[in-house]
Amino acid sequence: MTGSARTPHVRHPDQDEEDTRMGQPQQQSDGTEAGKPPLRVGMVGYAFMGAAHSQGWRTAGRVFDLPLNPVQAVICGRDAAAVRAAADRHGWASTETDWRALVERDDIDLVDICTPGDSHAEIALAALAAGKHVLCEKPLANTVEEATSMARAAEEAYARGQVAMVGFNYRRVPATAQARRMVAEGRLGRLRHVRVTYLQDWLVDPEFPLTWRLRKEQAGSGSLGDLGAHIIDLAQYLVGEPLAGVSALTETFVRQRPLPTGATRGLSAVSSAGTGEVTVDDAALFTARFPSGALASFEATRYATGRKNALRIELNGERGSLAFDLERLNELSFHDGTEPGAEAGFRRILVTEPDHPYLEAWWPPGHGLGYEHTFVHQARDLVHDIAEGRRPEPSFTDGLQVQRVLAAVEESAEKNSVYTPIAV
Amino acid sequence: MTGSARTPHVRHPDQDEEDTRMGQPQQQSDGTEAGKPPLRVGMVGYAFMGAAHSQGWRTAGRVFDLPLNPVQAVICGRDAAAVRAAADRHGWASTETDWRALVERDDIDLVDICTPGDSHAEIALAALAAGKHVLCEKPLANTVEEATSMARAAEEAYARGQVAMVGFNYRRVPATAQARRMVAEGRLGRLRHVRVTYLQDWLVDPEFPLTWRLRKEQAGSGSLGDLGAHIIDLAQYLVGEPLAGVSALTETFVRQRPLPTGATRGLSAVSSAGTGEVTVDDAALFTARFPSGALASFEATRYATGRKNALRIELNGERGSLAFDLERLNELSFHDGTEPGAEAGFRRILVTEPDHPYLEAWWPPGHGLGYEHTFVHQARDLVHDIAEGRRPEPSFTDGLQVQRVLAAVEESAEKNSVYTPIAV
Amino acid sequence: MTGSARTPHVRHPDQDEEDTRMGQPQQQSDGTEAGKPPLRVGMVGYAFMGAAHSQGWRTAGRVFDLPLNPVQAVICGRDAAAVRAAADRHGWASTETDWRALVERDDIDLVDICTPGDSHAEIALAALAAGKHVLCEKPLANTVEEATSMARAAEEAYARGQVAMVGFNYRRVPATAQARRMVAEGRLGRLRHVRVTYLQDWLVDPEFPLTWRLRKEQAGSGSLGDLGAHIIDLAQYLVGEPLAGVSALTETFVRQRPLPTGATRGLSAVSSAGTGEVTVDDAALFTARFPSGALASFEATRYATGRKNALRIELNGERGSLAFDLERLNELSFHDGTEPGAEAGFRRILVTEPDHPYLEAWWPPGHGLGYEHTFVHQARDLVHDIAEGRRPEPSFTDGLQVQRVLAAVEESAEKNSVYTPIAV
Amino acid sequence: MTGSARTPHVRHPDQDEEDTRMGQPQQQSDGTEAGKPPLRVGMVGYAFMGAAHSQGWRTAGRVFDLPLNPVQAVICGRDAAAVRAAADRHGWASTETDWRALVERDDIDLVDICTPGDSHAEIALAALAAGKHVLCEKPLANTVEEATSMARAAEEAYARGQVAMVGFNYRRVPATAQARRMVAEGRLGRLRHVRVTYLQDWLVDPEFPLTWRLRKEQAGSGSLGDLGAHIIDLAQYLVGEPLAGVSALTETFVRQRPLPTGATRGLSAVSSAGTGEVTVDDAALFTARFPSGALASFEATRYATGRKNALRIELNGERGSLAFDLERLNELSFHDGTEPGAEAGFRRILVTEPDHPYLEAWWPPGHGLGYEHTFVHQARDLVHDIAEGRRPEPSFTDGLQVQRVLAAVEESAEKNSVYTPIAV
Repeated sequence: MTGSARTPHVRHPDQDEEDTRMGQPQQQSDGTEAGKPPLRVGMVGYAFMGAAHSQGWRTAGRVFDLPLNPVQAVICGRDAAAVRAAADRHGWASTETDWRALVERDDIDLVDICTPGDSHAEIALAALAAGKHVLCEKPLANTVEEATSMARAAEEAYARGQVAMVGFNYRRVPATAQARRMVAEGRLGRLRHVRVTYLQDWLVDPEFPLTWRLRKEQAGSGSLGDLGAHIIDLAQYLVGEPLAGVSALTETFVRQRPLPTGATRGLSAVSSAGTGEVTVDDAALFTARFPSGALASFEATRYATGRKNALRIELNGERGSLAFDLERLNELSFHDGTEPGAEAGFRRILVTEPDHPYLEAWWPPGHGLGYEHTFVHQARDLVHDIAEGRRPEPSFTDGLQVQRVLAAVEESAEKNSVYTPIAV
Repeated sequence: MTGSARTPHVRHPDQDEEDTRMGQPQQQSDGTEAGKPPLRVGMVGYAFMGAAHSQGWRTAGRVFDLPLNPVQAVICGRDAAAVRAAADRHGWASTETDWRALVERDDIDLVDICTPGDSHAEIALAALAAGKHVLCEKPLANTVEEATSMARAAEEAYARGQVAMVGFNYRRVPATAQARRMVAEGRLGRLRHVRVTYLQDWLVDPEFPLTWRLRKEQAGSGSLGDLGAHIIDLAQYLVGEPLAGVSALTETFVRQRPLPTGATRGLSAVSSAGTGEVTVDDAALFTARFPSGALASFEATRYATGRKNALRIELNGERGSLAFDLERLNELSFHDGTEPGAEAGFRRILVTEPDHPYLEAWWPPGHGLGYEHTFVHQARDLVHDIAEGRRPEPSFTDGLQVQRVLAAVEESAEKNSVYTPIAV
Repeated sequence: MTGSARTPHVRHPDQDEEDTRMGQPQQQSDGTEAGKPPLRVGMVGYAFMGAAHSQGWRTAGRVFDLPLNPVQAVICGRDAAAVRAAADRHGWASTETDWRALVERDDIDLVDICTPGDSHAEIALAALAAGKHVLCEKPLANTVEEATSMARAAEEAYARGQVAMVGFNYRRVPATAQARRMVAEGRLGRLRHVRVTYLQDWLVDPEFPLTWRLRKEQAGSGSLGDLGAHIIDLAQYLVGEPLAGVSALTETFVRQRPLPTGATRGLSAVSSAGTGEVTVDDAALFTARFPSGALASFEATRYATGRKNALRIELNGERGSLAFDLERLNELSFHDGTEPGAEAGFRRILVTEPDHPYLEAWWPPGHGLGYEHTFVHQARDLVHDIAEGRRPEPSFTDGLQVQRVLAAVEESAEKNSVYTPIAV
Repeated sequence: MTGSARTPHVRHPDQDEEDTRMGQPQQQSDGTEAGKPPLRVGMVGYAFMGAAHSQGWRTAGRVFDLPLNPVQAVICGRDAAAVRAAADRHGWASTETDWRALVERDDIDLVDICTPGDSHAEIALAALAAGKHVLCEKPLANTVEEATSMARAAEEAYARGQVAMVGFNYRRVPATAQARRMVAEGRLGRLRHVRVTYLQDWLVDPEFPLTWRLRKEQAGSGSLGDLGAHIIDLAQYLVGEPLAGVSALTETFVRQRPLPTGATRGLSAVSSAGTGEVTVDDAALFTARFPSGALASFEATRYATGRKNALRIELNGERGSLAFDLERLNELSFHDGTEPGAEAGFRRILVTEPDHPYLEAWWPPGHGLGYEHTFVHQARDLVHDIAEGRRPEPSFTDGLQVQRVLAAVEESAEKNSVYTPIAV
């Protein structure tokens, strides 16, 4: 009798031939992938994000049953030799050295923008104008103005059948997607607190060089735009509403850093011995309110010694709580406040069950996924959105909302931390 | 050879007769406890804190080799039958029903104040005026004005040989004391971040009654004074400097609550069916700056479902980081940033070694202590301070500093979260 | 509405005057403690266990509402000066230097035996013959023969109204008592696996001296009797049945150790420069079967570098699992296998709720207890057993059962690990 | 000055153009992948392991700079339609339905065997005879006899330039590889204890059907061969020596299970309503000795409710300890016993630093990998072994050693758990 209480999802992938996990081709897959319409991708940029997106495009159709067949068609960068090497390494069929040429190509369906934030608006607007779908890395732009025009263009393009998504990939960790599902189902009840940090430590050493991420003209902002944008989007996504206002404090701990020894994008002919000014924030802290009354706190920093990628979020509601830590991305912590007190506690859910988001297509329980799989899931979802004409999440409008919060944070920090409402 | 690398402190309490842990009487203890001068304690209040302090006074001399012999002489409360029962339960020799009578008794050396904050100033000032040493529960007072007069009186009394300590007992968890030691030794280097929360959940239920802790006239404030005071003091203690300024946000989530069914102190003849107004904060969040440049964030709440006593603090410095959680009070987490990267990580130090603060007198490694032992350690330290004429830590001046931060938090919260400097 | 789902036990100790936790005297306590009949304790031994038992006797009546009033009447040891110092330190009213004299005293109700195992049988049998109640430290004896006579004597004494308990204090950690409750309620269903270790590291250093615990004539055995006895009793207690048989392997890693520099009990006039032979096991591992079919594994060692007091037990049943670690003694880990897979996980129960065993008398939720409180609970339960004429748990018969398992382990280890059934 | 203590490896991948992580093509990659000699892979089997190996072959050359270019040439399975679908799904260029045909093809360099254990020997021997390199899934075979002939054939083939590896992929988790490195460097000193479990729970439900893994004729054994083989190999790898002997106990908890409803390999035309006999062990526990004197315990089960993939190993040595849990595969726990006691503790190393094994080619610190990446690393190492003529690890001889341990475990379990030496 006790056995019958076991849920039937406790399966092993070799269980039977109907298995739809990776162990077996899915039933629906009666034709070849080649028989599906292609989705020809042109990617701009080939550094960290370019590599991650390449893994996403390469893998999505091998794991999930997709309506379109992603094709790694073109990769684009300014240095011809480097982009050629990147194409070989990451498996792209051809190269371009001018993103404008890429955008104009007839044999491209989607433009995937993996460049620093200062070029997002120009490329995305051109791609939308050229009739392409767009995937744009976060943050959407470096200013609210840019983001506004991008969101408007995306809305107009959507009316023409084009889809534009912004790359907040941390929505697509199975554990965060499961958390969103549980919040939406009311498992937490009315929310009281949201607590979010994104802690890294790669700037602790004052001798770390002045890369593009430390220069306002390219990066827009520092920890705020890089890490803060992620946690703002994730918090709004999980809570299900946009932030109402913020009170912020930012700081640049180390104001002068050595210039990189090699030439770096946009830094021609610098002497290797010199130093340069850090023009972005090193850390940003802010408190915030959600319209429904929940209080929130945020912290983004690159100076938290020993914290490598500690995106942590906790939500406390009247009925329960959830907690997540990106350094343990296969886990979700859940406290069910309706349990009897003597048996209640935060439980560590291993988010590797077939019932969890994205997991029906992956490995058996307990066989965890990694960081890169957020990009596989992003590719999967975007392909479905395109094939089915669905409005993507997060849309450029969602990206604009994050941009407004970033702007309010900067405004509050400049105005002595005064509470600064966020326009919707 | 490898064996010789073992540190000699790895001992078992039965090891030999020189052992000075609880297994054996300490060498110095050649006389009887009875031969030591007594320290006659009179305690005002007998609820939660009264019980905890009783355990402290009862146990300190049984575990530590003290210069004075603490005597549980008098316990004081307004309800004669209740205080009599409390005396029997907690082991006090006699009772009083008027704290003024207690303060005037010649056979009392120290007044231990365990009442709500609204009576701290009056009792403490009278006790100091009567020549007694004083231990006062936290927060020191309900206002900066009260705290200022208390700190001044304590300074004057110190010149006369009296000692006055405020009961921030969380300085005396071995793990926090060890953390302070490590910060003071420079193991963290220059501090960049301090992150502190004190999360409880006993107000999540809107039907929880309106106790004295929810009424401003008695409690002074809500989560802020109760939990916030603890984390402000602890953060300042660990960092080693007072806060420079704050930007704050407070909230009362549930504004009406049922009145308690029984009569409660200060609430005579209330109908059991009614509701009353919550006049304190339910939650307080603030960001802050330390003079040396470190950034801090604080959160105190009683609405964090599933968090029972989660006083958590993390410090990030250029050379290392420390983290502590009161729910696991025998542990301290330490990241040594000077370790080679491939072997570095947050280590879980079980703070139960003989080299750790207070531990030389306790159990073998791994045999943990509990919450109440902070009061044993507080009693131990205070007895030493009195016997040796040492300025106590935390002093009433330290308590005043916390009061100033609390006031600044309330001021900032009222002024739209604007950054509010703290007078020193 | 969500609020009403909250359980009413989420209380704060200052909530109201009916509070029965330590914050307030309990309602039943209408009389003084002095009005209760006394239970006059005579304790033999004053080292580690003597100190721990003293804390238990001193505290039990201050926390719990007991039917008898424990009195620390006599402490006994062979060295007159040392036992006098121990009496002062630990609060015993008088001393004896001969346990036979103690046992014969008319003003003693209970003999508490805290000596090494080689003297347990003689003292306990004499005490029972003298009409005393007995508390005997674990392991009950050094041989099955001794334990058998002790269990028989205890049964006969019980018929005369005497109570005899063996000090397996780890049954009285609130978390283990809660675990037993859950197993008994069927929350785990049919058990399949039991996994137990007790890991310490104080013998890793080969220069650690040859104390009495390393000599077979006094200690009986090494890790096996010291640590193994604890985990055997705890496993049988939690599972609810005795072990059926074992297959064992033992080892002495370091066979010669330096003699202690000072004189040690039973080691008169030894040269400080010499070494002696370790005559007990350093580590013992065994697999086992329970009659109901569950499989078990056990490991006891003092060579697990970095593990200070890692008594860990995990039980896996058809409906759920439980896990406990003594290094985090306020926590119990529970997996409810009947939860939907997407929300199931091991939950960390903070065993500090009023509904948990022993906790109704202690601090608010999240304010943890320590190692020594197991002795407070042991004293509490024993006082109740005596007052109410109840058969104690664990009884001497339970202690005998553990002794039989220890003997079977040694027999199996000598016979090439062959599976060795345990007589019941 | 403190800053200079920081190690220079704390980098961000966008740091500069010399970056060799995934963000940038590696410097050595001057030619195209296409310019490299191909390694044409033919894979037999396409279920769980087939999917995992496909990910490995597809990804290895995209992440690492390989001397040969892996080509997914042929996939082989008996059901033509299914294997065609698998080829499409997993990206294989062609299909075969007879492994003998695959082995004979001239355009295949390596045969990758992903079938159940009963066919390993025949396929591997044929592949080696045909001059192919071989990768064979674990366990190497179902009997010592098969494994012996396979190891002999592999040795002979190695003399002819062929490489044969067995797929113990858990050696290639970065954390286990780092652990091996630390043991080999002497960071643990002389080993005393090894503690290993592999816990899953997918058989807890007695209604789970009788798949091939529960039938001796195909699977060879149950938990023992499936999970036990992994932990035997991993323990021997980490310790650096083969096991000397074992004392074992096995059990089949549920002896009858429903037959699968669909046709399953080797089970033609079964009625869906019937049940069949489980002919393998459900759980296997054994203690063991290493030649150097360390003691070990092993447990493999599929009945540990709530444990999904808990391969856990702990090693205790005179100088330190290591612990690993596959459910948190990006972490390694290390206790350095030579640290001062007050600062020592198990540290959680996030094994995501560029100095960690395999990590120089992956993502920035804290961006974790997943289960499947063990197959990427396996493919990488095997390609290097082939290109450089290196003896692979683990070799078929290593696989044979595991087989001998499995046989000794079964022998001991049959002989009442008597200690059974393992022939080398």
